[in-house]
Amino acid sequence: MRLLEERIIRDGKVRDGSVLKVDSFLNHQMDVGLFGAMAREFHGLFKDDNVTKILTIEASGIGIACITAQVFNCPVIFAKKSKTKNIAGDVYTAKVESFTHGGTYDIIVSKDFLSSGDRILLVDDFLANGSALAGLASIVRDAGATLVGAGIAIEKAFQPGGDNIRAQGIHVESLARIKSMGTDGIEFC
Amino acid sequence: MRLLEERIIRDGKVRDGSVLKVDSFLNHQMDVGLFGAMAREFHGLFKDDNVTKILTIEASGIGIACITAQVFNCPVIFAKKSKTKNIAGDVYTAKVESFTHGGTYDIIVSKDFLSSGDRILLVDDFLANGSALAGLASIVRDAGATLVGAGIAIEKAFQPGGDNIRAQGIHVESLARIKSMGTDGIEFC
Repeated sequence: MRLLEERIIRDGKVRDGSVLKVDSFLNHQMDVGLFGAMAREFHGLFKDDNVTKILTIEASGIGIACITAQVFNCPVIFAKKSKTKNIAGDVYTAKVESFTHGGTYDIIVSKDFLSSGDRILLVDDFLANGSALAGLASIVRDAGATLVGAGIAIEKAFQPGGDNIRAQGIHVESLARIKSMGTDGIEFC
Repeated sequence: MRLLEERIIRDGKVRDGSVLKVDSFLNHQMDVGLFGAMAREFHGLFKDDNVTKILTIEASGIGIACITAQVFNCPVIFAKKSKTKNIAGDVYTAKVESFTHGGTYDIIVSKDFLSSGDRILLVDDFLANGSALAGLASIVRDAGATLVGAGIAIEKAFQPGGDNIRAQGIHVESLARIKSMGTDGIEFC
């Protein structure tokens, strides 16, 4: 998506350790006009999949997911990062490794909001090692729901997450796929 | 706001300890159609205040804030809950007491995204003890920006937060104000 790539070039900042800072428009300050354009792009890609709910993960996926859900005319569920280990039986849970902060954490989704009749589109801001997306996909499987695919804002295609997720047969669409990045610039696939 | 009150009556669940569970439409699963109606209501209340940015707090404020920002045609910033104490000098920070989970935590906002020329509308899902809102207001003050007011989905008017925040001269508008709640039902102001 040209608009997003141009914005990354203009406002993104490459930091040590394969970190791309896009906090001026994507995940701290949020440009909801840009999100609207991204939402319409996701709709064009998944409009024939009869999406019933969008599933994302707190916190930075929520904004994009909500604006995308307006276009799909469906609810959003956000998986919560759980600090406690004593998960009650009324939630689906998965383990996620954090790329940005290191370590692992649990994500949870109430069983009340996912059922076997649901057709789920995952939405998130980043795809890097793919751990968050794999966790969300496993929750969809546990619920017996249908996973129609994943809409991602920025994929770091030089990291293995995208390939791994696609190898599971999941339909992943990323609006900007970064082939390489460094102090000399950012190259897209 | 009649629509929100009716939804709270229909789908809200009162739990021990003054907890109102609205996770089927507000803060776990999110009804973005309802959020759109709330956003238009907020716009009607604050449209003459020349809002330049909406400030909220992760995670459950983000969805409402983003959809409200579409109507105001401005960006959203969400304050992040910080786990680390070593706050760098490039962020504004405030302490917040958690009503739901107990204890206190720090919230942070990058100094890059708030300036003295900004006119800030705070948006959040709940107002109970007012600690989150007070923290956000103090960040706006620290930035030298103008706080035009706060748009809240649900205020627990039987708790002191709303009165305390209004006593600071802050223009607070809550779309549903709960006077009392219990096993026998929910009464609005």
